[in-house]
Amino acid sequence: MKQASRPSKLQSLGEFGLIRELQKHSHSLSSDVIQGIGDDAAILTTSKNESLLASTDLAIEGVHFDLAFESLQDVGFRTAVANISDIAAMGGTPKFLLVALAIPGSFSPQQVRTLYQGFRKPCQQYNISLVGGDTSSSKSGLFLCVTILGQVEKKQALTRRGAKVGDLVYVTGTLGDSRAGLQILQHKVKQKKLPPPQGYEGFLKKRHLRPTPRVAIGLALSQDRLAHAAIDVSDGLSGDSLHICEASGVGIEIQAASIPISPQCRAYATASNLDPIDLALSGGEDYELLFTTAHRNQRKMSHLSQTLKTPLTCIGEIKPKSFGRRLKLKGGNDRNIVSKSYEHFSST
Amino acid sequence: MKQASRPSKLQSLGEFGLIRELQKHSHSLSSDVIQGIGDDAAILTTSKNESLLASTDLAIEGVHFDLAFESLQDVGFRTAVANISDIAAMGGTPKFLLVALAIPGSFSPQQVRTLYQGFRKPCQQYNISLVGGDTSSSKSGLFLCVTILGQVEKKQALTRRGAKVGDLVYVTGTLGDSRAGLQILQHKVKQKKLPPPQGYEGFLKKRHLRPTPRVAIGLALSQDRLAHAAIDVSDGLSGDSLHICEASGVGIEIQAASIPISPQCRAYATASNLDPIDLALSGGEDYELLFTTAHRNQRKMSHLSQTLKTPLTCIGEIKPKSFGRRLKLKGGNDRNIVSKSYEHFSST
Repeated sequence: MKQASRPSKLQSLGEFGLIRELQKHSHSLSSDVIQGIGDDAAILTTSKNESLLASTDLAIEGVHFDLAFESLQDVGFRTAVANISDIAAMGGTPKFLLVALAIPGSFSPQQVRTLYQGFRKPCQQYNISLVGGDTSSSKSGLFLCVTILGQVEKKQALTRRGAKVGDLVYVTGTLGDSRAGLQILQHKVKQKKLPPPQGYEGFLKKRHLRPTPRVAIGLALSQDRLAHAAIDVSDGLSGDSLHICEASGVGIEIQAASIPISPQCRAYATASNLDPIDLALSGGEDYELLFTTAHRNQRKMSHLSQTLKTPLTCIGEIKPKSFGRRLKLKGGNDRNIVSKSYEHFSST
Repeated sequence: MKQASRPSKLQSLGEFGLIRELQKHSHSLSSDVIQGIGDDAAILTTSKNESLLASTDLAIEGVHFDLAFESLQDVGFRTAVANISDIAAMGGTPKFLLVALAIPGSFSPQQVRTLYQGFRKPCQQYNISLVGGDTSSSKSGLFLCVTILGQVEKKQALTRRGAKVGDLVYVTGTLGDSRAGLQILQHKVKQKKLPPPQGYEGFLKKRHLRPTPRVAIGLALSQDRLAHAAIDVSDGLSGDSLHICEASGVGIEIQAASIPISPQCRAYATASNLDPIDLALSGGEDYELLFTTAHRNQRKMSHLSQTLKTPLTCIGEIKPKSFGRRLKLKGGNDRNIVSKSYEHFSST
């Protein structure tokens, strides 16, 4: 390559550093861009009453998935859900999916069909149309890029910005299941000694392989801007709560004891000598929604939880920026929340 | 992998076979999808007066580009133009770009910035906003997936369908330049003996590395549906004319002598003992527009060509399907047009 290259490698910048930099340079050229790079999806104006949401996600063999312990249908399913979840986190309705595939020459047509069955399953469930794509050969493993388009009423989109001091912090469902499920799947491949099966394995593996995007809750939270800020938990509670704090310019206090952990995750953690809170903080891909709402909405949250049959748990409060980002532990002590999210180019 | 796999490999199906099959299964779930998989872009309803156009394209190191003879800026530029050209071929206005990158760990931040400069250049020129993306590490080479969104007035989008018997077949600019430029670039790397430089090299290399998407012509052709069918020449004239014939259910006659060849491409072909017509037929990535229009529009075409300062050449006529797809040669003989386009999974 001809261009001069600094000696520094990507490790020195980190993925989020890179995103921030590209974001800085990609200031919008057009008034049609309400939100560009840096949230779960871009918000774009295409009509008078509605905004378009657009998000694109990579899934690379050996980086994001491992065919040693998940089927091609699982890979397709998970990749589609990761995208659908981005639209859910913006409070929108997912509408259209585009799939680009680079496929190793050794693949059979049947394998490609199986992968597509995985994409189609959540699409059918959420009434999303598969409308486009590209295919190519790959010389090194399977490579997917999925783009989703959604719609949201104008000015109703939920972003990471907008959390207000005094807001309550809520999360849907339970956290840590996906990471626990991934560990069980990985251990099996590595033939590591596992605690004897105790009935939680199937649940946790399914939570990893077949996650649920929280579309209905996202839509409800965007009505009348019930939530002030929202994100989907794809990087882990620690990293994703930091994203909200950074974007909103606020601090946060999370009560460790309030973080919703499933009995199955708790049992797995006990048997494996792990702290389930750590699984929740650092484990990504739960695709639950993390959001903030005004204190006065507590009753509405209970009602919403019942109506949509989805657990909604208050896990903390938004604080001034000077407060920092703290996790309050059971004994009354607290510690800083540091991002344990996976950074593709981190040197750690 | 667990799923049963047929012994057949992808070669048996071919890329276009695969696209056709996926298209068949991806019948729209929603009335908002006017055109799904199988054209240059999907056509989607998002507002009353406008349709949304969406297209996604892969660019993979070692498959679509070779950093041995093109810079990262060239790669970014060409990949963005390939997408912009898809919107041009639908008669739309390109609006938003999303870029997903999988980057080898050995890359420096400066190299990523250089790549982005390549994306940004044509975006600035056509007033397109870079609104989203994803980044990941790659264990094997650079991998890009670019998604473009555009807009078109309702019912004005140009598709591959709609060519009518008796239509004239037009093409913008000149064909074959990009392939000639690519060959010159490849020869240099392979240190093959080249004819002595004759002044055409710079032009042809630039036509490959910095192609021009035909946005203004595409927009003009979609006004009042001046064109009946359109496609951008990304796979070569042979393959792309077949796409129009198949989608429209028609035949075609192309006059070899009428195919517009630049003096530079002609000189390169002569010096290299090649047939320039073959370069035009099989060489992709010219990103010129190939379209059909009613016979009565000949004058309008001359006028349009002058106004937009873009050559528009009539190269043939749409025939009934039973006529087949024929190339009329200079001496009066003719031969079948067979697709010489690059198929990612073809066994040839």
